[in-house]
Amino acid sequence: MKNKKSNFSEWYSEVIQEAELADIRYNVKGFLAHMPWSVRTMKNMYCIVERELEKKGHEPAWFPALIPESYFKKEAEHAEGFSADVFWVTEGGSDNTKFSERLALRPTSETAMYSMFSLWIRTWRDLPYKIYQSCQVWRFEGKSTRPFIRGREFYWTEAHDVFETKEEAEKQVEEDRDTTCNVLKEFAIPFIFFKRPEHDKFKGAVSTYAADSIMPDGKIIQLPSTHFLGQNFSKAFNIKFVDKKGDEKYAWQTCYGPAVWRIFGTLVAIHGDDKGLILPPSIAPLVAVIIPIYFKGSDEKVMEKANAIKKLLESRCISAKVDDRAEHTPGWKYNYWELKGVPIRIEVGPKDIEKKQLVLVRRDTGEKAAIKESELVEKITKFSEEIQSNLAKRAEKFFKEHISEANDMAQLKKILEEQGGLVKVEWCGSEECADYIKAETVGGDIRGTPLGKEEKPKGNCIWCGNKAEQAVYVGKAY
Amino acid sequence: MKNKKSNFSEWYSEVIQEAELADIRYNVKGFLAHMPWSVRTMKNMYCIVERELEKKGHEPAWFPALIPESYFKKEAEHAEGFSADVFWVTEGGSDNTKFSERLALRPTSETAMYSMFSLWIRTWRDLPYKIYQSCQVWRFEGKSTRPFIRGREFYWTEAHDVFETKEEAEKQVEEDRDTTCNVLKEFAIPFIFFKRPEHDKFKGAVSTYAADSIMPDGKIIQLPSTHFLGQNFSKAFNIKFVDKKGDEKYAWQTCYGPAVWRIFGTLVAIHGDDKGLILPPSIAPLVAVIIPIYFKGSDEKVMEKANAIKKLLESRCISAKVDDRAEHTPGWKYNYWELKGVPIRIEVGPKDIEKKQLVLVRRDTGEKAAIKESELVEKITKFSEEIQSNLAKRAEKFFKEHISEANDMAQLKKILEEQGGLVKVEWCGSEECADYIKAETVGGDIRGTPLGKEEKPKGNCIWCGNKAEQAVYVGKAY
Repeated sequence: MKNKKSNFSEWYSEVIQEAELADIRYNVKGFLAHMPWSVRTMKNMYCIVERELEKKGHEPAWFPALIPESYFKKEAEHAEGFSADVFWVTEGGSDNTKFSERLALRPTSETAMYSMFSLWIRTWRDLPYKIYQSCQVWRFEGKSTRPFIRGREFYWTEAHDVFETKEEAEKQVEEDRDTTCNVLKEFAIPFIFFKRPEHDKFKGAVSTYAADSIMPDGKIIQLPSTHFLGQNFSKAFNIKFVDKKGDEKYAWQTCYGPAVWRIFGTLVAIHGDDKGLILPPSIAPLVAVIIPIYFKGSDEKVMEKANAIKKLLESRCISAKVDDRAEHTPGWKYNYWELKGVPIRIEVGPKDIEKKQLVLVRRDTGEKAAIKESELVEKITKFSEEIQSNLAKRAEKFFKEHISEANDMAQLKKILEEQGGLVKVEWCGSEECADYIKAETVGGDIRGTPLGKEEKPKGNCIWCGNKAEQAVYVGKAY
Repeated sequence: MKNKKSNFSEWYSEVIQEAELADIRYNVKGFLAHMPWSVRTMKNMYCIVERELEKKGHEPAWFPALIPESYFKKEAEHAEGFSADVFWVTEGGSDNTKFSERLALRPTSETAMYSMFSLWIRTWRDLPYKIYQSCQVWRFEGKSTRPFIRGREFYWTEAHDVFETKEEAEKQVEEDRDTTCNVLKEFAIPFIFFKRPEHDKFKGAVSTYAADSIMPDGKIIQLPSTHFLGQNFSKAFNIKFVDKKGDEKYAWQTCYGPAVWRIFGTLVAIHGDDKGLILPPSIAPLVAVIIPIYFKGSDEKVMEKANAIKKLLESRCISAKVDDRAEHTPGWKYNYWELKGVPIRIEVGPKDIEKKQLVLVRRDTGEKAAIKESELVEKITKFSEEIQSNLAKRAEKFFKEHISEANDMAQLKKILEEQGGLVKVEWCGSEECADYIKAETVGGDIRGTPLGKEEKPKGNCIWCGNKAEQAVYVGKAY
């Protein structure tokens, strides 16, 4: 295994391959074959995301993957912003009939959904209207692709909400921040929730907000984003309602897009170490793996005990598996499951049975503990909680160490070059200065101001020297 | 609501629309916008299907939605059989770059998956290899589409299994029948599991097996099907393994495709009545809906009780909802939730509170029962079980009444015309006779012989009069 710290990029590719998360050899650029270990983890992640959205009044829906070009083009700015990203379906059937209208493979579903919202929403009684769908989207990415970070096909959830008033829609942005917080906490991922600058908005939105985390190489990764759409789409798609007074009004909208696929890539990167993956117990497909340690003549007793432990754990809703492969040594199995990131290993040998004890090993710290067999469930629960909070603590520490401040361009450049992360600077607000800053730092983007924690600027723009309008954070992003 | 018995087709369309299951007005032929009530039900159905597959050793995977034309064409018969069904992605990006190779929107995933299997499977230790994915597929259907029955986009699960020996693969077909049985039982859908005749196989398969049920109009609907692929695909995709003796061998394969989307349509059709949907409690998004009955001055007490009941039920994992909409009368709400098919209604009024009782109403029979409040959980559980078994019993009765036997063509034609269903006849096995039978009966297909219950033919082919080789069932299918 490559060294994560000194060689993050290669370490990441290696862990994807060695832990059997995905195979990049599928013969379409930017498309992955996803293997069971990552899919089982992402399915657990989806449960968390969907539970949180449903708790907040969203209901699930499924919309078509294909969008007629005419729907797609209804909101001009949106269509322009996404046009470079679209895969087009142009023909089908045995005689390869060319379609009279091209069909877009959805890069996002606003235009598919909102064409129906205009039929479904009639009066204030239908509002707020909150739905979500978990699905794949496809984007014809020009940038180089990387598994679970940037792909031409990825897995996400998109929530789309419709309101009577601007205020309610603006409140939804805060609710989405809260959802992001609850969800990323389960995955032990630290982040700042930014209001993006004007020039970096979602195409078609009035304003855009997004969670940024920091990868081990100091680069920024955008996680869930949420958009206040104002009435831009409701006007383009004719989403109107009759209000309590009987007047017809255009609705106010938001959309929110947590991408489980990318969050998975982020947690692989953030929590892993030189032995491989480390999965938070909250989403690991297995919380514990049981390794029977054989010696001649003791096989049967050991296997019996291992299976009994598995049964006991499962009866308490703790997922567990016995690795009973005869062709491998216990040592080989330790490595195998460490690579896969299973939070806790349970070792059972004949001596342990005699002493009515078991050996537990934590994946995050490597710590070993001999425990009484009778305390197993209690200890596994305790260890799980400790691992979960240790991963969060570690990640938080790294994150905080990579938040800094710069007073001039030289300092900003130096920090971005040497350690990356998010660097606070003051900025006049002009896109021109943002472009110069990006060019000068070779990729430093203005990520925005933290929502709800805006800081007043005290001085001048780090680039032009004019009066600063905002204190913003700069980072080089994936 | 239309009368289901006399006007099934219109009744079906109406229930899809009125119960807000899906909207057919999305502007691409054969594509639906799926609304929350159907999606919540289908998500519950997916849990049942996936749990059953995992119990039998399958692990989840996700494969790309796009398949390069060259992969798609590797197995000649398969490619030919599906070529009429394919939507092609031919261009993308801002300058609409034409791709050098067309990409198929997957109509099914054999060719996507098996190109990877050839990289992943090395030795007998990797076998059996059993995975599944739940996904959408797209087929450029020529036939007329109908929601949840035939569409150009639909939702299914596909399981793909690889084995060392022919015998193991053949055994898998029986396991798939068992899976079908367990799954359809949860949905209270009766069926016969047929081995299809040679001329009606899945393209690329050695043999095909499928569950057939009977719709209220007497037409046959194909539900999960499973295919013994032999070595056809392993040879085309080079899926080889080294066996225990060290020899390199081609693998044996099967695939299995339960389509939740179509099973949902079937259960809507089979269980519903002239008041709307009837959902089996095993998969209903809500098992019970609580209707508070207000009179002046009693609102608060009634609402409090209604909410307390909801809490109690949820604490026992029984999904429940209070319909507290002030703008509608209790009577309006009864109709609304009957249309949606919620299995049990709970009525709470001030008199009930005084008497410490509740009124329960069963959706399937309309039966009303005043019960002691203290017995609520127990009674709901009992009613759920009774509804589940009553739906199964009703469906089974209809199914059996539509299984018959014909000794000559006149009788076969008469039965198919008058009541439809499955009609047992004797057949020589030639495709020519099958074609004549189909033409003469205006659509009667030979569905095959029941797997594991083959009956010896006693006489002659119903068409040509030569010696019969098989006792088969004929029906007109969707």
